[in-house]
Amino acid sequence: MTREELIKQIRTKKTFLCVGLDPDMEKLPKHLLEGEGDPIYEFNKQLIDATAAYCVSYKPNSAFYEAYGLSGMDSLEKTIRYIKTNYPDHFIIADAKRGDIGNTSTMYARAFFKQLGADAITVAPYMGSDSVKPFLQFENKWAIVLGLTSNEGSSDFQQIKTEGKDLYLQVLETCAQWGTENNMMFVIGATKAKLLEEIRKVIPKHFLLIPGVGAQGGSLEDVCKYGLNSDVGLLVNSSRGIIYASAGKNFGEKAEEEAKKIAHEMRTFL
Amino acid sequence: MTREELIKQIRTKKTFLCVGLDPDMEKLPKHLLEGEGDPIYEFNKQLIDATAAYCVSYKPNSAFYEAYGLSGMDSLEKTIRYIKTNYPDHFIIADAKRGDIGNTSTMYARAFFKQLGADAITVAPYMGSDSVKPFLQFENKWAIVLGLTSNEGSSDFQQIKTEGKDLYLQVLETCAQWGTENNMMFVIGATKAKLLEEIRKVIPKHFLLIPGVGAQGGSLEDVCKYGLNSDVGLLVNSSRGIIYASAGKNFGEKAEEEAKKIAHEMRTFL
Repeated sequence: MTREELIKQIRTKKTFLCVGLDPDMEKLPKHLLEGEGDPIYEFNKQLIDATAAYCVSYKPNSAFYEAYGLSGMDSLEKTIRYIKTNYPDHFIIADAKRGDIGNTSTMYARAFFKQLGADAITVAPYMGSDSVKPFLQFENKWAIVLGLTSNEGSSDFQQIKTEGKDLYLQVLETCAQWGTENNMMFVIGATKAKLLEEIRKVIPKHFLLIPGVGAQGGSLEDVCKYGLNSDVGLLVNSSRGIIYASAGKNFGEKAEEEAKKIAHEMRTFL
Repeated sequence: MTREELIKQIRTKKTFLCVGLDPDMEKLPKHLLEGEGDPIYEFNKQLIDATAAYCVSYKPNSAFYEAYGLSGMDSLEKTIRYIKTNYPDHFIIADAKRGDIGNTSTMYARAFFKQLGADAITVAPYMGSDSVKPFLQFENKWAIVLGLTSNEGSSDFQQIKTEGKDLYLQVLETCAQWGTENNMMFVIGATKAKLLEEIRKVIPKHFLLIPGVGAQGGSLEDVCKYGLNSDVGLLVNSSRGIIYASAGKNFGEKAEEEAKKIAHEMRTFL
């Protein structure tokens, strides 16, 4: 998907919500586990149908599928196929946080872009340029590099001072030179929203994928105040707050309510 | 596997070689691709049988299996099962370079330790403590944290100065506090062998996984000179130099020769 297509979708639907599809068997509605068929795929399908009108993107996190072995990976393949078939305008992010030496990163890019058909993959920057660049070689595909993440441990290294500057700012500045605003985004946690002011000085135009609103406690208002740019430039993700809004048979309905609530709030900032 | 078991195996066999199982369809011997069955699994089985006497560890890199979708993941599962069944003393490293927020890293740990049955997984440190610690919660399983990698891009961030010290040294020092020498190792590229002298001051006892000997140009002699400790403390990996020693029907034989050559060289350093 191109940047223009993504922006157009955001403008048309007046939402920049990304729904995280992180199925955990221990939290899935009981009736899905008791039924026949693939409970993860059933869960995702109903969530997707319920939320598609209120979001522009889906972000399955690879860990939640790999944890269930081949059957989990099959659920992931089917889920992505379902989105591409039924909601082809939605931007699909494989949240996989990969990164390895050059020829190996190329293999990961093939896995997620070619085999699975995702539009974007999240990438860990620690191994540097030749670990990130292979993800930029695919037309209309995106690398979303970890900048400043939403978790507690992010301060361990990302906020270490490097010659007077936090490491994550150095990461943003350096990685931005490897790609363009048309094939690279960055992950910035909503829990660090106020730092977006500083971040926008380094990468004013890039889209940012913002996890951490909802269950992790980040504020949508702060994210918008410091993060919006003239092309919107934000994809704000919510996972648990939407997909586990109810553990009953009405989980789809409750997920729809939550997604609608966030989308309506987003509208006030556009 | 425990540290004691690993050391015992190294002492008994007089080798600390790890063989990287990174199957690339474009490099596989033609006759395997033409035959029936699973060419990746066939390739790996023959390589394992050929090299088991000369190595103590196998390291399949997850990317090379994910690139072939479900069938690739099936090959990985079968490969690990084959090693565990036929060579239960060998230490199995899933080279996956994972790392995510706490509950997600736990999912990855389940995927690789429980579903696949690996002894260890490589972990990217950028997201900090709560991304690494979940991998340390499984008995006799190991997290192998990226320290200083063997690729060119490693200088982009890993060798950035942080308050007078290279970032990777800070990573080693901080991560070492989260685990012990019994559940944590570090990746240090053979291409940076001379820095092992400095590294051993920070982590004298930890085992190090050393890629980059062979195709990437690192020297085994330098690695041993600066990296060996009283428990050996090294697993030196070679992938391409062994597994693609021949593209003909004799690939197993040639792989055996290469592994034997390295193991014999290792013996002189023990």
